[in-house]
Amino acid sequence: VSRPVRIGLLGAGTVGRGFLELLGRNACSIEERTGLALEVVKVLVRDPRRERPGVARSLLTADGESIVHGACDVVVEALGGIEPARSLLAQALEHGKPVVTANKALLASEAGSALRGHARHEASIAAAIPIVRALEEGLVGDQVSELTGILNGTCNFVLTLMAETGATLEATLAEARARGFAEADPSLDVDGHDAAQKLALLAELAFGVRAGRVRVEGIRGIEPEDVKAARALGYVLKPVAFARDGGESLELRVHPAFVPLSHPLASVRFEDNAVLVRAAGAGELLFRGKGAGALPTASALLADVVAVARGEPARRIERPAPPKEPVRGAPPAGRSRYYLRFPVYDVPGVIGRIATALGRREVSISHAEATLAPEKPGQGHVKVLAHETSDEALREALEDIERLPVLTGRSVAVRILA
Amino acid sequence: VSRPVRIGLLGAGTVGRGFLELLGRNACSIEERTGLALEVVKVLVRDPRRERPGVARSLLTADGESIVHGACDVVVEALGGIEPARSLLAQALEHGKPVVTANKALLASEAGSALRGHARHEASIAAAIPIVRALEEGLVGDQVSELTGILNGTCNFVLTLMAETGATLEATLAEARARGFAEADPSLDVDGHDAAQKLALLAELAFGVRAGRVRVEGIRGIEPEDVKAARALGYVLKPVAFARDGGESLELRVHPAFVPLSHPLASVRFEDNAVLVRAAGAGELLFRGKGAGALPTASALLADVVAVARGEPARRIERPAPPKEPVRGAPPAGRSRYYLRFPVYDVPGVIGRIATALGRREVSISHAEATLAPEKPGQGHVKVLAHETSDEALREALEDIERLPVLTGRSVAVRILA
Repeated sequence: VSRPVRIGLLGAGTVGRGFLELLGRNACSIEERTGLALEVVKVLVRDPRRERPGVARSLLTADGESIVHGACDVVVEALGGIEPARSLLAQALEHGKPVVTANKALLASEAGSALRGHARHEASIAAAIPIVRALEEGLVGDQVSELTGILNGTCNFVLTLMAETGATLEATLAEARARGFAEADPSLDVDGHDAAQKLALLAELAFGVRAGRVRVEGIRGIEPEDVKAARALGYVLKPVAFARDGGESLELRVHPAFVPLSHPLASVRFEDNAVLVRAAGAGELLFRGKGAGALPTASALLADVVAVARGEPARRIERPAPPKEPVRGAPPAGRSRYYLRFPVYDVPGVIGRIATALGRREVSISHAEATLAPEKPGQGHVKVLAHETSDEALREALEDIERLPVLTGRSVAVRILA
Repeated sequence: VSRPVRIGLLGAGTVGRGFLELLGRNACSIEERTGLALEVVKVLVRDPRRERPGVARSLLTADGESIVHGACDVVVEALGGIEPARSLLAQALEHGKPVVTANKALLASEAGSALRGHARHEASIAAAIPIVRALEEGLVGDQVSELTGILNGTCNFVLTLMAETGATLEATLAEARARGFAEADPSLDVDGHDAAQKLALLAELAFGVRAGRVRVEGIRGIEPEDVKAARALGYVLKPVAFARDGGESLELRVHPAFVPLSHPLASVRFEDNAVLVRAAGAGELLFRGKGAGALPTASALLADVVAVARGEPARRIERPAPPKEPVRGAPPAGRSRYYLRFPVYDVPGVIGRIATALGRREVSISHAEATLAPEKPGQGHVKVLAHETSDEALREALEDIERLPVLTGRSVAVRILA
């Protein structure tokens, strides 16, 4: 029997405590299966004098450097945020200690970019869904052409609940907060930036190149009207992240989308996440599960600790291809079908005016309807389905229409997935 | 740059040619990503004089031993069947050469059991769906309690097409054969043995113990009536494989099942496969994709070759737990809700007689209906939904009922998934 694998754990918040709990429960079975005895030897906390149920006081320290310089074989980071996580992990690597992290924000940041390829980070993208392993190992002999994901559990929860109850975004967000699926400040989730960080990390793994800028649209403008319209037309409204390798360039975008009911992502509900991968050899692969939470994240951290202890370091792209576009350059324009909604005064000819303005920019439409807003007398909505059009043409058309005097507010444009 | 990784390929049938094709396309990108130059140096074929497009004649040999004893770094087996695959792989391992195989039948057989834990075999279970990796690596720190899968693409194709067209099992099997989704002799698929082999391999990976006997029911008895009844009751009929770790024993079974439309497996259609894993930490994870085919299988073989070249051997359960039941022992009785169909003469009181016979064995029912069979005057079906009952009680009740003079043929019993 070899000596134990000594783990230095940075952080005893939700994820850190989940890690300690799952390791406590499963250390025996891990040793049975792998021959590895995993043992946490130090835990970094802010206040080591505070009692923590299930953690021996003697393990606690407020001195992170004593962990990363000290007697441990692997460093597990569950602090979150940029500092001190970044500098502690950098020091651990300098001391030759492998590191495992759940910190997506750090990895996706400029400050953390040096860690990519050096820290194992399955837990950082979709918790226990083994998508990092799938892309780096399972599909290493294949060519991934496209990724479509639901990468933000908060947005998916909110849109699912809106569809179930007809309630507003604000009301469902409050419910999500009450159930622990949304932060006090949900803007990182609702505005799409959390999903964009995950998408950029996934794209780097899938395509082997540094990802460019992600086009991000959040779900803030979505109203119960839109969720209802999706259902009436045979779709479901989902928060989608999309990456495509277009040969010369990468297309990366995060936005709400109308997803056909027969699409594999349509049935991914509430806080679940999923990633649909299209590869030349493998065809379409779907991975689905809980994308967040203490125990799912701990499960992925433990898997990475075992991999490190088995002598499998983080994967590096050995000879990275040159970036397919300037790292901060503008992403290429996409083409898509669209659902459009215009809040309007209920005046004669309003559909005609909107349809004419769309036609002038060569956006052709397959369906248009006007409905009254019962709570606002004299007002209503015009809803339009547009055939495939370029994002540029659509943007110009929307600018034209928003200058028309019949509009009472901002228009909403949602892509329709094929 | 290190020297190339020399691959000895056994077999140039569908899978072998897929491997050569995918490697030819992706060797450059694999080298860019991993630094590994993969090169096939020998290919075992029956007749080396036959021209094979895309394969240099100089690589071909009919002498398998010259490959497994010769100058190669990894042996990839794509022969299928037990011999000569078994003895060639055994010799390769004796010579210290790592082996990669897609050969499920061999691994699941007694003859091949010595290879398990020594051969990498991602390709053997569900082609490109990385379920071996997920269980051995992604969930190594977790506790899997249950697996539910659709592991046979032929059966799933047949049941999906029956639901779409209303055609019989025989007619859809002919269609599946025409499209290349079924063998000339489909009995391994249709009778459930193919899925049972895969389930036993998965259960060994998931639970870390040698799997016992699998209860197998095929789909031969299924008629268009049953597929229609499933839909009318809010279900879809699927070929299901199920494994549960019951603490003292393992429950392993393969059978058709009524799957609720909201279940993650309900939308897995045609030839697609899927595995739903329930684990203590990770929660529910779904993996879905093509479970067969030349290129999906080749994609998984290549991933295993890269893993081997990266110095990651096959995983062995280092200290296997004692089997939870005698390896060939009887599996425990399960409990389930059931859909039952009885072909009957259209006589008064037939529902009453069947319901009474069920009640006598304490099988209680929630729904019963009688329908006429328009093509058979004077005959019809009684369809029953039974509340949760033990498999034993149900079997006894069915034996009682099949002795009743009102029956015109064998009854059909299909489990209903929760």
